[in-house]
Amino acid sequence: MPSIAPTAPLHRIEQDSLGPVSVPADAYYGAQTARAMENFQISGTPIRHFPELIRALAMVKLAAARANRQLGDLPDEKFAAIEQACLEIIAGRFDDQFLLDVFQGGAGTSTNMNANEVIANRGLEILGEPRGHYATLHPNNDVNLSQSTNDVYPTAIRLALLMSYGRLSEALERLALAFDAKGSEFASIIKLGRTQLQDAVPMTLGQEFQAFAVTLREDEQRIEEASRLLLEVNLGGTAVGTGITADPAYAAIVVRELGMLTNRPFVVSQNLIEACWDTGAFVLFSATLKRTAVKLSKIANDLRLLSSGPRGGIGEINLPPEQPGSSIMPGKVNPVIPEVVNQVAFHVIGADLTVTLAAEAGQLQLNAMEPVIVFSLLQSLSLMTNAIDTLTTKCVTGITANPETCRKNLEASTALATGLVSLIGYERAAQLAKEILATGKTLRELLAEDPLLPDELIDQVFDLDALTRPSRLRRRPPVARS
Amino acid sequence: MPSIAPTAPLHRIEQDSLGPVSVPADAYYGAQTARAMENFQISGTPIRHFPELIRALAMVKLAAARANRQLGDLPDEKFAAIEQACLEIIAGRFDDQFLLDVFQGGAGTSTNMNANEVIANRGLEILGEPRGHYATLHPNNDVNLSQSTNDVYPTAIRLALLMSYGRLSEALERLALAFDAKGSEFASIIKLGRTQLQDAVPMTLGQEFQAFAVTLREDEQRIEEASRLLLEVNLGGTAVGTGITADPAYAAIVVRELGMLTNRPFVVSQNLIEACWDTGAFVLFSATLKRTAVKLSKIANDLRLLSSGPRGGIGEINLPPEQPGSSIMPGKVNPVIPEVVNQVAFHVIGADLTVTLAAEAGQLQLNAMEPVIVFSLLQSLSLMTNAIDTLTTKCVTGITANPETCRKNLEASTALATGLVSLIGYERAAQLAKEILATGKTLRELLAEDPLLPDELIDQVFDLDALTRPSRLRRRPPVARS
Amino acid sequence: MPSIAPTAPLHRIEQDSLGPVSVPADAYYGAQTARAMENFQISGTPIRHFPELIRALAMVKLAAARANRQLGDLPDEKFAAIEQACLEIIAGRFDDQFLLDVFQGGAGTSTNMNANEVIANRGLEILGEPRGHYATLHPNNDVNLSQSTNDVYPTAIRLALLMSYGRLSEALERLALAFDAKGSEFASIIKLGRTQLQDAVPMTLGQEFQAFAVTLREDEQRIEEASRLLLEVNLGGTAVGTGITADPAYAAIVVRELGMLTNRPFVVSQNLIEACWDTGAFVLFSATLKRTAVKLSKIANDLRLLSSGPRGGIGEINLPPEQPGSSIMPGKVNPVIPEVVNQVAFHVIGADLTVTLAAEAGQLQLNAMEPVIVFSLLQSLSLMTNAIDTLTTKCVTGITANPETCRKNLEASTALATGLVSLIGYERAAQLAKEILATGKTLRELLAEDPLLPDELIDQVFDLDALTRPSRLRRRPPVARS
Amino acid sequence: MPSIAPTAPLHRIEQDSLGPVSVPADAYYGAQTARAMENFQISGTPIRHFPELIRALAMVKLAAARANRQLGDLPDEKFAAIEQACLEIIAGRFDDQFLLDVFQGGAGTSTNMNANEVIANRGLEILGEPRGHYATLHPNNDVNLSQSTNDVYPTAIRLALLMSYGRLSEALERLALAFDAKGSEFASIIKLGRTQLQDAVPMTLGQEFQAFAVTLREDEQRIEEASRLLLEVNLGGTAVGTGITADPAYAAIVVRELGMLTNRPFVVSQNLIEACWDTGAFVLFSATLKRTAVKLSKIANDLRLLSSGPRGGIGEINLPPEQPGSSIMPGKVNPVIPEVVNQVAFHVIGADLTVTLAAEAGQLQLNAMEPVIVFSLLQSLSLMTNAIDTLTTKCVTGITANPETCRKNLEASTALATGLVSLIGYERAAQLAKEILATGKTLRELLAEDPLLPDELIDQVFDLDALTRPSRLRRRPPVARS
Repeated sequence: MPSIAPTAPLHRIEQDSLGPVSVPADAYYGAQTARAMENFQISGTPIRHFPELIRALAMVKLAAARANRQLGDLPDEKFAAIEQACLEIIAGRFDDQFLLDVFQGGAGTSTNMNANEVIANRGLEILGEPRGHYATLHPNNDVNLSQSTNDVYPTAIRLALLMSYGRLSEALERLALAFDAKGSEFASIIKLGRTQLQDAVPMTLGQEFQAFAVTLREDEQRIEEASRLLLEVNLGGTAVGTGITADPAYAAIVVRELGMLTNRPFVVSQNLIEACWDTGAFVLFSATLKRTAVKLSKIANDLRLLSSGPRGGIGEINLPPEQPGSSIMPGKVNPVIPEVVNQVAFHVIGADLTVTLAAEAGQLQLNAMEPVIVFSLLQSLSLMTNAIDTLTTKCVTGITANPETCRKNLEASTALATGLVSLIGYERAAQLAKEILATGKTLRELLAEDPLLPDELIDQVFDLDALTRPSRLRRRPPVARS
Repeated sequence: MPSIAPTAPLHRIEQDSLGPVSVPADAYYGAQTARAMENFQISGTPIRHFPELIRALAMVKLAAARANRQLGDLPDEKFAAIEQACLEIIAGRFDDQFLLDVFQGGAGTSTNMNANEVIANRGLEILGEPRGHYATLHPNNDVNLSQSTNDVYPTAIRLALLMSYGRLSEALERLALAFDAKGSEFASIIKLGRTQLQDAVPMTLGQEFQAFAVTLREDEQRIEEASRLLLEVNLGGTAVGTGITADPAYAAIVVRELGMLTNRPFVVSQNLIEACWDTGAFVLFSATLKRTAVKLSKIANDLRLLSSGPRGGIGEINLPPEQPGSSIMPGKVNPVIPEVVNQVAFHVIGADLTVTLAAEAGQLQLNAMEPVIVFSLLQSLSLMTNAIDTLTTKCVTGITANPETCRKNLEASTALATGLVSLIGYERAAQLAKEILATGKTLRELLAEDPLLPDELIDQVFDLDALTRPSRLRRRPPVARS
Repeated sequence: MPSIAPTAPLHRIEQDSLGPVSVPADAYYGAQTARAMENFQISGTPIRHFPELIRALAMVKLAAARANRQLGDLPDEKFAAIEQACLEIIAGRFDDQFLLDVFQGGAGTSTNMNANEVIANRGLEILGEPRGHYATLHPNNDVNLSQSTNDVYPTAIRLALLMSYGRLSEALERLALAFDAKGSEFASIIKLGRTQLQDAVPMTLGQEFQAFAVTLREDEQRIEEASRLLLEVNLGGTAVGTGITADPAYAAIVVRELGMLTNRPFVVSQNLIEACWDTGAFVLFSATLKRTAVKLSKIANDLRLLSSGPRGGIGEINLPPEQPGSSIMPGKVNPVIPEVVNQVAFHVIGADLTVTLAAEAGQLQLNAMEPVIVFSLLQSLSLMTNAIDTLTTKCVTGITANPETCRKNLEASTALATGLVSLIGYERAAQLAKEILATGKTLRELLAEDPLLPDELIDQVFDLDALTRPSRLRRRPPVARS
Repeated sequence: MPSIAPTAPLHRIEQDSLGPVSVPADAYYGAQTARAMENFQISGTPIRHFPELIRALAMVKLAAARANRQLGDLPDEKFAAIEQACLEIIAGRFDDQFLLDVFQGGAGTSTNMNANEVIANRGLEILGEPRGHYATLHPNNDVNLSQSTNDVYPTAIRLALLMSYGRLSEALERLALAFDAKGSEFASIIKLGRTQLQDAVPMTLGQEFQAFAVTLREDEQRIEEASRLLLEVNLGGTAVGTGITADPAYAAIVVRELGMLTNRPFVVSQNLIEACWDTGAFVLFSATLKRTAVKLSKIANDLRLLSSGPRGGIGEINLPPEQPGSSIMPGKVNPVIPEVVNQVAFHVIGADLTVTLAAEAGQLQLNAMEPVIVFSLLQSLSLMTNAIDTLTTKCVTGITANPETCRKNLEASTALATGLVSLIGYERAAQLAKEILATGKTLRELLAEDPLLPDELIDQVFDLDALTRPSRLRRRPPVARS
């Protein structure tokens, strides 16, 4: 940790508006970063833990420099130094200069100044000047030109999220593909469908797994839609959205430059005052992650239910054993992978609440709580991506079915009685169901005793395959349809 | 409350699969509704509290009847009776027959059966038969034909939400218009913009209010987008999505009928198995309401901050006095309307958590927790709509400005120093800011002492109007742009 | 709804500091209540929905009047009128005069003034004066003497919660007794214990049910402990806790009077400034309700799991059938009562978030969000109490066991192998477990093949009863203990 | 990361019940840990990030070994090796052997096995045997003797929380002391008290700060109370609480040993079946942390409000400047320390939701989600402790007051009118308040015009000091009190 104590030869002294600060001599960051490292010793997690955020910041700075040069506000030599510094940061060369705690006050000012200072000092190095000689290239006057933390930081957050969520989407698609494959593999395994944990009607195990793929693909779409809101940025608004210190033409130019640099269709917010404090896009993006977490938790629950037992539960599928399940119970194997998915889901739902609280705490022209918003979102993205990939590779692809158990559970149940309703009515079918449970007789035996049911109808009742598709037993053909 | 105790002449006895039940003789509902009224005495709030849900249920039932008739599964006479009964329910004639508690187990079965029974008994009445003579028109075999609670109830929920959220959108638009009007009214009032509750840079009060309108209109759009997910329904899936008991052609026909009846573009879910348990659309719809709640709370907080004082706070605006503010402090008037908006927002955020928990609790082929989802959503919609209308009519439209306070706060601050950065650099400007605070001198006085600044530049610094728009002070013209 | 429009003979005109207000001529409430009824049309739920709050308010008012009389600040005649009015309100005679919406701004001022006005007008009636003649008995100067909403309202909330939570505790105890009874009834039914939904080790069904009773009783204690925090009240602090307008001796006297009146050991907060804004006791009380909700949801989940099937699930217990379970599936009976318990639990957890948000929103000397705190808490208390009683009477007392299924599930599993670990080691036991699952042989058959195990040890392995208590199989006796 | 791929000379092969596993040759952990490291690559945060958990685990293991020796189940030589290994772990020598991800499935089994394996292998080393020769000292049969993850892990969690929360309490007390000191320092600064952000009545700045100390000390007590619930442990219950594999005397002995080792009054849970799945103590402990977070957030909000401005806000106090506040606005200094406190509070509230969700997900005899519970709690404890210390040292101790602003805000307001109510009644006082606001005259001027008020009474009105204590202006002395 840097110290503001009396300097050593290994340190240089920088000056900011609050006075002198000692900075490690070889640090690219400067006074304000050093202060912030001293001030915020909260979580021990540095912002470099999320390199997308650093890259995104450098991209925004580069786009700004390009706009400033076009507007004649940044001389070519300064521009060249800034550009090269930014490109190097984007390439990951200076991640170790971004050591600020992810928990920080100041609405991101420290993170923005960290980028400004690293760019300035690396730029000075490129220009052949020693670090800290900001008269030549200044963190605020040059690197931060036409900018404010209040437009740069939210824009960088948006870009970082856009760069990160792609990994989540790909992981979701891999999981969906794994469920697809199981859907096909299990397509002909007939089993009991269950509602409210009670025996309901027949279906196939393939249908059950296929539905997981469908639901995840819906979420891929929802996340993609929510991410589009992140393309609206408030560059050019500067401190409160009025654009003070920025050329009237700057906003359009910088956003076009950012779009070209990132190959993403960024647009300027329609109202920069509102955009300066509005965190609605983060709230909705977080909520969409929460939605996916809810689904993942539900799927994990289902996998645990379906594999419960192996003897004293549903036992229709087997999860691949990944760990001996117990320090005391020999032979026990637990659904450890779904369990970790549940826990990640609970974390993501909790993090969504954190985002909500931070969003609600915005006041007047700014939301100062954005650092905890971006930390929560980037962490949720990372945890979910890893949990999903783990679920795919260490669980779903290795799932096997127990077709015999599936069939036995179905046949012991009253599930086949539902197909009879259109033939014999709800009450008569309910009576049969009661008899099955009371006598232990099978439905076929009971039906055989009913003189009113022709045999070919009874055969239809046991056409299990038909019963897993839309189908209506009738004594007479339906009328022609209009 | 109905009783299952020994019958009286004022009661009729109905039979369901669990045995006989006493029902009030004049009730249109039947055995299962009576059981549910007895079983669920939880909140005292009957489902009729949300008449949209009753209307939506009847519309789904009517669409199903039309589809069944087309498929030849429902004779004309039965159809006519069902159709008339449904239309009467839609017209609100039988709201008093829907007295079930909004908190109920059974995944909506009781609510669905309530509709089935009321339609059957009113249909019997139309057909000239006494109540309970279900051999002629049966709640399950005829009214519920080709249906399951598991496809009817979620569809009705979706329709009820679609019918309800329009009121919210209209209320949001009225509030946005009120903020628009204040935005225009206050367009020329120069004031201090604040970030992190600290004096920042100049803006107009009109800009501040206009931003509220902008943010609400974004939410109108988001809610509209989220509502589109509700148009996908799982009619035809019956019990678990396999479509058992439903003709293969039924799903397409019933959804087309529902679309015509409601004039909404409903579509069949692409995968009915998944649609049977998926509550993702509710999670996202709820999250969008939460987003709006977060914004409303932020706006309410801002109104309370801006009107704080009147003497010991910011005091830039006056909220219309609606209540004497204190039982003890004479003359005190409180921001009671924004305060109630905050509280409704907190409720909606809490209700979103309830929806999340209920969604996560889905198991296997169904989510049995849908009743608490729909209750939470309809209540949030209603509370928010009322709170927004109250905010519009009893607060925003009556807000007045204190232009003198606005100007005084600005001029006493260092906010004007920011515009100088491009002229004199960040450090020099920061030094001036310090001098303002330390000496009490004004910025103009201090600038006048600086021999390097030409007078016409100084004039620009105090062109407050220009300072509330993108603007960059320069000593030299920018170069021509590429 | 009262209107402030031109008056009719059915109305009287009252004056408050904002001007004239029309009040129904026969209303006991007055101007400020009428304004609040007009202002807050949010939820449609009047505060009379929670009569404990009205009674609590009247008790606080009565205690204040008694203190004021003792201090010589309230003449006997006024006191007598106030006392009688309060006692009548406590007796429930004027509930219909408390029609304000539970959602209201103003930090409870309207509710406090509602009480002040009803007491004043009923007092005037007792004194033979017409309503509204406040010169004789004044809502603020006399009824609210030495008080502020900011000390009266939080005190009344505390008292209302103390009066309400007792019903919850009693309901919890009834449920615990029902689980106790099942614990005894099922004491000799041996079954499979399950961890992570996987077959684990033997236990009895009685142990499983007994544990539910234990956990609920712990919560009774926790709620009782949390309730003790509610006994600290800030009467005497008036507006911000400094005690302005209150005699220095007032606080001690009024709290003693309140204690005598309610027979509860109320104490004065040690620091009235802090107590004026602190909502910590509500946060913790709410959290304790949430804890109970979490447990109830877990118990409901367990009951649903244990009764799952009846054929394709665990099926070890039967819940009493309360509703036909499906509109389409004949014979299906669902766990509707546990399901409604889950949903109430989800609501309570959501309401706890609302309380948390409201508590966080306190500012400076007051928390203005207390109305939504008290509404959320009273509603949670009411819903939980009803849900618990429903669970007791309509579910738990009627649960029956399936001892055969219990035994079959146990014997088919590897659960008995754990007891062997101390005899043959973890690895050998794990190998046996694998053989059981692979070969379908029973453990006894496999053990019989092992020449190293004496028969009497094998018999111990199958002493199921011993296996449900602490027990360690040894080849040799343990050494004597120190 | 370890690999299960073909071994190298740098690896040894271990065997567990799922087959062979390659382990780094110099690792003290073994097969199951290696599997878990491979399986759970979720967050990148290893459990060693929370060394208290490792120490707590080793203490539980040591207590168990001592109990087993007393019961004659563990030979002296094995015991000596286990004891030494445990003591070394407790001393922190093997933290680098605990690299498992904090997010893990398996209900803590992997963490427990990690400890078992490190102890066994270090024990083997002590005994002069190579790693992995478990025939001599076995992770399950010897180290885990009489134990199950299901009793060891929850006990270790409890102990880890007990060891961690002390740091939080101390930090709270340091913060309380800092507020105490400011309370004294500011005791004579008269200012405006505010309710609902509106000018209310006089108080001192010292009273305002003193209240912060009071509220924090209440939370110290609440946390201490909640921590007592953690002293109840389920050692001896083994897998599901029945105590299978454990000597009947074991539970009492091991808990006594743990108590002596840790110097904490641990007790055995009254019902070990319930204790095995119950997470109520964690829910309440988490809720208590949330309560503290709510208060910290409120205090941070107040500090930001009171220091708002410096010119366009309340401006009654100055926070010490810690960071230049803006990359663009010269001279701006922001309340960065309170802001980071807010963000930590939002995180803790979100983490409490995660704990709640995890607790609700317990099923039957166990809660498998405990790893995310302990991670969330330990992280919240750490973040809060750091945030509180930061608030103390970098903010509160450096706060200064602006007495002139305090007095000016008070005198410009209507706050002094409240004290008049007892002299001239609420309506007359309210009228005066209106006149103050309308005319700009001071209260003293207006009162001087009132012929009915004797001068000595008027003097009392302006005895500001008296107005910040309980005080009642009277025209006549009160009667003697009973």
